[in-house]
Amino acid sequence: MNVVAQLQEELGDLVELDESALEAARADSSGHAAAGRPLAIVHAESVAHVQQTLRIATATRTPVVVRGAGTGLAGAANAGAGEIVLSTRRMDAVVEIRADDLLAVVEPGILNADLNRLLAAHGVWWAPDPASREISTVGGNIATGAGGLLCAKYGVVRDAVLGIDLVLADGRLLHLGHRSVKGVTGLDLTSLVIGSEGTLGVIVGATLKLRRLVEGSPCTVTAIFPDVRSAAAASAAVTASGVQPAIMELMDAASLAAVHALLGLPTPPLGAAQLTIQTDGPAAIPEADMIATILRTHEGDTVLSHDPDEGERLLAIRRSMHAAMTTLGTTLIEDVSVPRSAMPEMFDEIARIEREYGLTIPTVAHAGDGNLHPNFIFEGPDTPPHIWAAADELFRAAIRLGGTLTGEHGIGVLKRRWLVDELGSDQWELQRQIVRVFDPHGILNPGKVFSSDA
Amino acid sequence: MNVVAQLQEELGDLVELDESALEAARADSSGHAAAGRPLAIVHAESVAHVQQTLRIATATRTPVVVRGAGTGLAGAANAGAGEIVLSTRRMDAVVEIRADDLLAVVEPGILNADLNRLLAAHGVWWAPDPASREISTVGGNIATGAGGLLCAKYGVVRDAVLGIDLVLADGRLLHLGHRSVKGVTGLDLTSLVIGSEGTLGVIVGATLKLRRLVEGSPCTVTAIFPDVRSAAAASAAVTASGVQPAIMELMDAASLAAVHALLGLPTPPLGAAQLTIQTDGPAAIPEADMIATILRTHEGDTVLSHDPDEGERLLAIRRSMHAAMTTLGTTLIEDVSVPRSAMPEMFDEIARIEREYGLTIPTVAHAGDGNLHPNFIFEGPDTPPHIWAAADELFRAAIRLGGTLTGEHGIGVLKRRWLVDELGSDQWELQRQIVRVFDPHGILNPGKVFSSDA
Repeated sequence: MNVVAQLQEELGDLVELDESALEAARADSSGHAAAGRPLAIVHAESVAHVQQTLRIATATRTPVVVRGAGTGLAGAANAGAGEIVLSTRRMDAVVEIRADDLLAVVEPGILNADLNRLLAAHGVWWAPDPASREISTVGGNIATGAGGLLCAKYGVVRDAVLGIDLVLADGRLLHLGHRSVKGVTGLDLTSLVIGSEGTLGVIVGATLKLRRLVEGSPCTVTAIFPDVRSAAAASAAVTASGVQPAIMELMDAASLAAVHALLGLPTPPLGAAQLTIQTDGPAAIPEADMIATILRTHEGDTVLSHDPDEGERLLAIRRSMHAAMTTLGTTLIEDVSVPRSAMPEMFDEIARIEREYGLTIPTVAHAGDGNLHPNFIFEGPDTPPHIWAAADELFRAAIRLGGTLTGEHGIGVLKRRWLVDELGSDQWELQRQIVRVFDPHGILNPGKVFSSDA
Repeated sequence: MNVVAQLQEELGDLVELDESALEAARADSSGHAAAGRPLAIVHAESVAHVQQTLRIATATRTPVVVRGAGTGLAGAANAGAGEIVLSTRRMDAVVEIRADDLLAVVEPGILNADLNRLLAAHGVWWAPDPASREISTVGGNIATGAGGLLCAKYGVVRDAVLGIDLVLADGRLLHLGHRSVKGVTGLDLTSLVIGSEGTLGVIVGATLKLRRLVEGSPCTVTAIFPDVRSAAAASAAVTASGVQPAIMELMDAASLAAVHALLGLPTPPLGAAQLTIQTDGPAAIPEADMIATILRTHEGDTVLSHDPDEGERLLAIRRSMHAAMTTLGTTLIEDVSVPRSAMPEMFDEIARIEREYGLTIPTVAHAGDGNLHPNFIFEGPDTPPHIWAAADELFRAAIRLGGTLTGEHGIGVLKRRWLVDELGSDQWELQRQIVRVFDPHGILNPGKVFSSDA
């Protein structure tokens, strides 16, 4: 009996073979698609379904690609020929909310924003806020180690998970971590699974570390600068002042122009870059006032609003970035991260690559934490070689500046060929061996992250 | 040529054979000592010395116990017969301080407090503050995943390390992590090494995540309650109010009485327990005032001070706990951690164990994060069987309440026999296999953490 028939025998209607669904599972939000079409999609509705699927996969040595909402940006959840798609999207229950212990126990398929709407009624929230939060799952956020706009003040996923329930490739269920704030019992496998991109096991549950809702309304400051370097210098001055913004986003000239065009706003001055900053909490107003003063000192054309609705309107310009990029062509969104002080140099490197390759690379940055998203734009579905060559220069520059290939999107398939450059071959090989401990037959997301033949 | 002669040939005077030094390396601050005396102590002064030592150890299959300042409380750095002690205490340089990037690069042997004195001149600090911070090394803090008094507000070691330089058992040097705030490149081996207690490699350098110094002076509130349960309920009310104290320490009656006796203070009322709370930052005064109101509502006999010197005097009572315990006999300091809401139940369990075993178990708790330190007191150097039986009940109660064996001290040798109870045998075996990837010949701290024959 072939693997699909075995899955159907055990899991019945949970096994989907619809062609358009299989076709959709080939790609994520990166636009990149796997070669060929997967065998089947299993829509797991319980831990037992995940375990059954993995036992069949292990017995038949069939590769398994775990998938949440498919909003990844590195291709890690893309499934191709000969692979089973294991979707945990239907496992979306919130098992427990304990505001007194600042924790929640959830299934992996719940959307980040849906969870936060439920939590708000209890006066708490889960801080990780990837830009995709309305459409991405908590399980996917954990599997990629997602970041977001609020990270500099409120941390990334790694800071916000106490425990993970993990099904191994052979179907065994492990409970990693604990419910207490502190705990150093054995190796920290919870952290190891965060950002492991489906290579170590299937996340079937998570104990999340919550925060109390921030009181009051945010204040928003935007400022236009004559060029990106002066905007970067102003953001560095904000950081150096000791004020901690909740959000500090930088848009370069090409980004700003594309968004203004999309939204029908007046064309910004040639070369102009923008900072968008939000403060929150009890000191939101004095902090916003102080930031406005700093930006004006740096000759930013500054707008300050204490009104949250006006603030959302100002922030909408930044939030429209991804939509604006898609109007320009196919986009390869990069994700380098550097020490904060190296941001101006990183912008210089991007300008150099633009000149050398004859490209425009619209770039936004989470300026509070040094994470930049340069967007490579091209025609057609496949990334052309000269774009990869330019991206290669970008990655090497980031590593040279003490940074990393990927701040929050992950390696997936799109960055696997550079992984060894950052890790070094000894560490790369050690990491592969650790993966083999979890997945001895190599059936979990094979070819992702650690594949050497990229 | 035997291993000591090989070490001497390559490392000369860095190899110490002095009997009293070897004798001292058998024990840490737990009071527990390894059987037999180690072969030699290597005082590494550079990464190269660490690598040379490990190459000799691998070639001769000689076990290596890494040691910092020897302040551990679980016996993980205790070295016995046939083992090499590899001390990184002399590697105490601060390589780099970058206040703008909120990071510092340090060698492992620097004392936590010495580092923080240097950082203060740059307006920054490293938040982990184990009670041993004046005498414990940063490398040891990382190896144990140390906590401290400030964790509920400022995090533990796991939250404060960006990267680790690690020498493997075979002498190869790996650079784990990065200098940027964000980064999800491959598996998070930095987190895996934090708390690994010398089983994965030798920490020879660390890139630390810093915070800006907190402005202003702390405020201090203490309150005496008729019993420990009402003190625990009052601390829960403080947590529920949403105010975030920097420090919130609970002392039960036996602890309080012992410290008062040590310091020559008036005997506290029979059964009385105490909360000691500090607030800091821009809202320190209103937060302390609010906390004092809550404690008085819970009928605590409350003292509030806005004066930092008076605050230090009040906190000295809590800081004298360890000294007070040593006046009572030999101490086995336990370290269970539970979800905050389970603290009153955990105190009930301790009271039950006291009754059933005819013991007094003085207990202090980091009440802000649910981490309790029950102290078992006995005569003589060895922990008697009935004390272990009582500790066994304690551990099982903590795990039953959703907690953990060890919040911040680690497993070492003293808790290894319970590790499998918390992890489950599948996870325990998986963790052992991961250790073997780093250390195939099992020469790094053998018998610690994962030994099954405890």
